[in-house]
Amino acid sequence: MPRDRFAARRDRLIRRLRKTAAEALLVTNETNVTYLTGFSGDSSYLLIGPDQAVLLSDSRYTTQIEEECPGLDVTIRSNRQPMTTIVARTAKRAKLRRLGFESTSTAFAQWEKWNQEIASAELVPIAGLVERLREQKDRGEIAAIRDAVTSAERGFAVLRRSLLEEMTELQAAHDLEHTMRRFGAERASFPPIVAVGPRAALPHARPTGRRISESPFLLVDWGAEEKTGYKSDLTRVLSTGKISSKLERVYRVVLNAQREGIAAIRPGVPCRDVDAAARRVIEKAGYGRHFGHGLGHGVGLDIHEGPRLSPASEDILKPGMVVTVEPGIYLPGWGGVRIEDDILVTRDGCEVLTDVPKEFDQIVAG
Amino acid sequence: MPRDRFAARRDRLIRRLRKTAAEALLVTNETNVTYLTGFSGDSSYLLIGPDQAVLLSDSRYTTQIEEECPGLDVTIRSNRQPMTTIVARTAKRAKLRRLGFESTSTAFAQWEKWNQEIASAELVPIAGLVERLREQKDRGEIAAIRDAVTSAERGFAVLRRSLLEEMTELQAAHDLEHTMRRFGAERASFPPIVAVGPRAALPHARPTGRRISESPFLLVDWGAEEKTGYKSDLTRVLSTGKISSKLERVYRVVLNAQREGIAAIRPGVPCRDVDAAARRVIEKAGYGRHFGHGLGHGVGLDIHEGPRLSPASEDILKPGMVVTVEPGIYLPGWGGVRIEDDILVTRDGCEVLTDVPKEFDQIVAG
Repeated sequence: MPRDRFAARRDRLIRRLRKTAAEALLVTNETNVTYLTGFSGDSSYLLIGPDQAVLLSDSRYTTQIEEECPGLDVTIRSNRQPMTTIVARTAKRAKLRRLGFESTSTAFAQWEKWNQEIASAELVPIAGLVERLREQKDRGEIAAIRDAVTSAERGFAVLRRSLLEEMTELQAAHDLEHTMRRFGAERASFPPIVAVGPRAALPHARPTGRRISESPFLLVDWGAEEKTGYKSDLTRVLSTGKISSKLERVYRVVLNAQREGIAAIRPGVPCRDVDAAARRVIEKAGYGRHFGHGLGHGVGLDIHEGPRLSPASEDILKPGMVVTVEPGIYLPGWGGVRIEDDILVTRDGCEVLTDVPKEFDQIVAG
Repeated sequence: MPRDRFAARRDRLIRRLRKTAAEALLVTNETNVTYLTGFSGDSSYLLIGPDQAVLLSDSRYTTQIEEECPGLDVTIRSNRQPMTTIVARTAKRAKLRRLGFESTSTAFAQWEKWNQEIASAELVPIAGLVERLREQKDRGEIAAIRDAVTSAERGFAVLRRSLLEEMTELQAAHDLEHTMRRFGAERASFPPIVAVGPRAALPHARPTGRRISESPFLLVDWGAEEKTGYKSDLTRVLSTGKISSKLERVYRVVLNAQREGIAAIRPGVPCRDVDAAARRVIEKAGYGRHFGHGLGHGVGLDIHEGPRLSPASEDILKPGMVVTVEPGIYLPGWGGVRIEDDILVTRDGCEVLTDVPKEFDQIVAG
């Protein structure tokens, strides 16, 4: 990724900052700091405004910042200087009167401390400014997400061929992560879910010692994270035994719902309309109350980021957004079906980035 | 773990809550919710006071909560009911006038929203109440940490025997995590650091494609997390080539510093004195400015928790605390040495929980 991409992002942020009540923004969210600087460490803030961009960090990161952020102004504090002291000093030197802070990622107790110690500037809560920039991915980010999709696809292709009846959910989950890493991923983008039969009724099931053979189907929700930090997020159901008519019925409803959701995706469409397009299919089939979560979410440096695809969402789709579409039906005691792909919003529609078989006749493992 | 252990923790919390200005506490920190209820999911709050303990969650977790928290009062919201609405309603029904909230893990923006919507109660910031309870581990927790130590020890024993010159830092890190899982760990407690030679000068180095053979030594910082959520955290240096007199000199200083630190650990001792005992050794050897971080931290459900062992710490050691002792010397361009063990504070001293060779003549890999 060219280094000036980070400067370009900072410029976009500064333009948006001009429309707020703050003169400069203290970026404390670690992922936002990474997005704006390329620095991959933690415990570091970026103070950014029209006249300054300075990374506030500590001596653990001196060398790493030189490597990752050449040319960026840096203030390194010693371990006897609290971060708040450095922030106060930097704000005072810059003669800032109204200092913005990221109110969705600043703890209330942190704000109390700043309020006491930053005497020279008024603190202005700013919500989601960098996060909204991050929703629309640039070319490098989309390429990075494609890499994360490829690693996830390869890992799953190996898993479905290597599933053994005596394997446990945990073993399958661990093998899946290890395989994705062998294909070049940094790690799984979140702990993979491998849920056998009734466990699949828990949308966020943690893998257990339950064996694959204990039920005729399993649900796998997984993704890869690349060295770049960008992530993918997919879900598939695999059958490992006799397919019941109930599984087929539920599966086809979810697949149709997912198709309707994806078909609704293009720039300018309210995200709640995409949710509604998929939800309608599930409600018409009589399973409405068994689809208890939103249809999807943005994915990028965070596994869950904006926009939200849900009944209450106020977000509007824009080109460059990458969202999951993941309807599900969960029947306590029986199990659940969820199908999830990652979709790029293009200038005139969308592109499904993930390519893993999902036709009903393709769900047999092996 | 007996289920009533969670009720006992809630009772201890309620006793401490009586000394605050709040009648009840809204626990929003996910790890604190787990500690107090046994619930291992996310996005759920616990409202707790002398007259109520109710878990506020959503329909994704209905089944999981029944399994993990039998007997606990639960309110399940639908995906059209925002969490804030449910909190406001629950507080009103309970006729709470002063509702405490966890100010170190509540975002400022969240507080703004509550402030608007929770009309019936005054919001009282409470910092670190549950976190301070968590600092002193009970018997079950110490057993869980011992399990995490065992998995980490076994993983490292395999790694040191299987290191190949052509292996990369990343491959070694991934193999280490996979091995710990084969020995029963849920996952690594954090992404393992494997840093070859000069990379070891970065205390938080991310593993790269650099090969083991590129330098005569490497640093490994790793740990395991068990299904219980409890974690371990260790660091060792391994030599893979000719040992220089510089490596020997630096290593012996760090090892002596670590021994002095551990020797200072017993109940009643200020944590900054433990830091000072170790730091003195490094300063006397002339490396003071190359030890830029605190000596250690508590470890448990979080990889970094209280107490802090640092020059500025106000914490006092108490029985049941489990802390890391991890002095380091980092020389840019050359590399770094850090040695880290996990120490249990006992009634009359301490017990080193981790048992991995660290004598200078034991650092040769193989």
